[in-house]
Amino acid sequence: MTEVAVFGYGTVGSGVVEVIEKNAEPIASRGEGLHVKYILDLRDFPGDPYADRVTHDADVIYGDPEIKVICETMGGATFAYDYTKRALSAGISVCTSNKELVELHGAELYRLAKENNCSYLFEASVGGGIPLIRTITQALTAERIERICGILNGTTNYILDRMEKAGLDFATALKEAQELGYAEKDPTADIDAHDPCRKIAILTSLVSGKKTDYSDIPMEGIRDISLNDLAYAWMLGGTVKLIAMSEFDKDGCRAIVSPRVIKRDNPLFAVNSVFNAVLIHSDMLDDSMYYGRGAGKLATASAVVGDAIECARNAGRTIECGWSEEKLVLADASGMKQSYLLRLKKSALPKLEERIAIEEKLEPTEEFLREHGLDPKDFADEMAVVSGEMSEKEWKEKIAGVDGVIRYIRM
Amino acid sequence: MTEVAVFGYGTVGSGVVEVIEKNAEPIASRGEGLHVKYILDLRDFPGDPYADRVTHDADVIYGDPEIKVICETMGGATFAYDYTKRALSAGISVCTSNKELVELHGAELYRLAKENNCSYLFEASVGGGIPLIRTITQALTAERIERICGILNGTTNYILDRMEKAGLDFATALKEAQELGYAEKDPTADIDAHDPCRKIAILTSLVSGKKTDYSDIPMEGIRDISLNDLAYAWMLGGTVKLIAMSEFDKDGCRAIVSPRVIKRDNPLFAVNSVFNAVLIHSDMLDDSMYYGRGAGKLATASAVVGDAIECARNAGRTIECGWSEEKLVLADASGMKQSYLLRLKKSALPKLEERIAIEEKLEPTEEFLREHGLDPKDFADEMAVVSGEMSEKEWKEKIAGVDGVIRYIRM
Repeated sequence: MTEVAVFGYGTVGSGVVEVIEKNAEPIASRGEGLHVKYILDLRDFPGDPYADRVTHDADVIYGDPEIKVICETMGGATFAYDYTKRALSAGISVCTSNKELVELHGAELYRLAKENNCSYLFEASVGGGIPLIRTITQALTAERIERICGILNGTTNYILDRMEKAGLDFATALKEAQELGYAEKDPTADIDAHDPCRKIAILTSLVSGKKTDYSDIPMEGIRDISLNDLAYAWMLGGTVKLIAMSEFDKDGCRAIVSPRVIKRDNPLFAVNSVFNAVLIHSDMLDDSMYYGRGAGKLATASAVVGDAIECARNAGRTIECGWSEEKLVLADASGMKQSYLLRLKKSALPKLEERIAIEEKLEPTEEFLREHGLDPKDFADEMAVVSGEMSEKEWKEKIAGVDGVIRYIRM
Repeated sequence: MTEVAVFGYGTVGSGVVEVIEKNAEPIASRGEGLHVKYILDLRDFPGDPYADRVTHDADVIYGDPEIKVICETMGGATFAYDYTKRALSAGISVCTSNKELVELHGAELYRLAKENNCSYLFEASVGGGIPLIRTITQALTAERIERICGILNGTTNYILDRMEKAGLDFATALKEAQELGYAEKDPTADIDAHDPCRKIAILTSLVSGKKTDYSDIPMEGIRDISLNDLAYAWMLGGTVKLIAMSEFDKDGCRAIVSPRVIKRDNPLFAVNSVFNAVLIHSDMLDDSMYYGRGAGKLATASAVVGDAIECARNAGRTIECGWSEEKLVLADASGMKQSYLLRLKKSALPKLEERIAIEEKLEPTEEFLREHGLDPKDFADEMAVVSGEMSEKEWKEKIAGVDGVIRYIRM
């Protein structure tokens, strides 16, 4: 039996205790089993079945030589950072769901783990219960990963899905997501794409082996996506998803988080509701996809516990992920090549056609718009076009001089 | 640098050498790097760039203390079995793509690896380059896996896809698959479901921790699937896929491989062409799916090399998968509950309605049939119904006395 302490008894922390207790039998069949000896939290939990394990004193835990693994589910990058450093320095492995801390200090904490023959694992920090970190660090290790393209935020995927399927506008869909508990009261981290940006930064770090700062990655949320944008995506047999992407080639790595038109033949097209999925393109395997619940108390907790089991199995050594503290200098994302869906005033078309080759023109019929609950009046003097593939730098130069451009969405 | 020997220089074996050479850089970034020192094969390969590494004498390899990992890609369960036992007994880790050997002797070979502080890994034996084995043995370890439902054979998925999309009949689609090299000259192992049955046996073993014999699993191939069957699936907004399934509950485990109607809302619906995918339902994570190329020289080879990297990282110890040699006694698959798509003579309907509750009746219009290139005459006196959920045992009893039953497909 490996003795475990849980740091932070909130949603994920209480999930960790629940998973360890409820699935004691399958967990034991995977090794020697786990037992929660302590729960560290500032609060008391009178009446909680595990109230007797709650302590406010971290020293009790660090002072107990039986504790081999700490599940850190406190969140934030201040106290959690100190607690994690202290644990790893003492040779206690740490498993976490704390994407903020992993994004900021993961490389350093991994080094600290290596120096002390223990492990720092963070499967739950990206994609909840979907094994993405292991896939990159332990499975696709013979591959040259060329592109990661992921739906890494369930909240925004839910909102876009409801806009798509129920014809809700953004504000209404957001309100619904908040009422259902899928979106926070302050939804900024999700809808402005900070959350998926942190996650793609972590994945990019693991692919490159270098430290990727999320603040270096351009991000664009879904606040401005309207049903009018979606109408043109539908005409293409597609939809709009918030996609976190990084590409690796001889010029280095480019990353960006932004809404994109995803067509029906893309495996990400069918990823609905709060589900997450990551499509990885690599040189030998080609496309592979990993799909599941990217959030939720038990799914996330289960990933933390899965990590704890790996730590127990690998006691006294470090599970490697090859993450150095060297900073990854990202190539300019505007060098990323793609095509664009451009909404524009009909009057702007001739000028635009002088400047770019247009692959498709989209003018929705009144019938199509009414079917989708849209007002034909809003589309009276506008249309959309699909461009060929070019870098965003080139694209922006081409459309710069054209009057009547409304907005564009990457494809 | 870890020295590796490749046993068998056929399709996968030469792929292993190619991956190690071509991706030397990303592989080295994951650890200390791999180097192919020997290739064991009965044949010579004059002119091959690695001809100088070919040996016919296994003793040279076993006698070289530098060799830490053997990639066994010989196939078959006779020579490969002996070679693997000898390697593991000598403390040399073995990675393999050989599903036949893994299915037959995996549990014993894993024990042998444990006894000798080395590893026996077989990611490539199921789902080619998709990390399924690791997902079960190392990632979803805190989960109680309740159901595995997979498209584990690319050949049959390709054939069904071509029947579906191009309206080819089974024989024509098979011929096309053979011409493209997707199907063997003797296609029995694929179309009669031996191949996916071996694979689900391996996955079932790893979930249960016991030895699952594939010969205990009922299997039904796709030889008898006709466009007329597909027509009814289409009416339901679905299609037919060859599904390998195992279910785990308090009664134990039930497994079966058979064609099934898969509806549009099932993530497996969109798995086309030669792609494989596995949908895992577990208690904490709910549904998760793993998708990619389930076969092909480089995808399979890459999984073998990924295993070799793990062996090198874990030198001197065993990567655990919790597989005992105790036999898994499967519960009777006829206890598995599902609904059924039943084709029957129209005249049989009244009798059938006396015996089962019918959820849906399907009578294709002439227009629908013509649109799909089908002859309405063939459907003149037949129809289909969808039943409620019941065990197959109960289902068979219910339809036993009904004259005019044509055939049924599980849903």
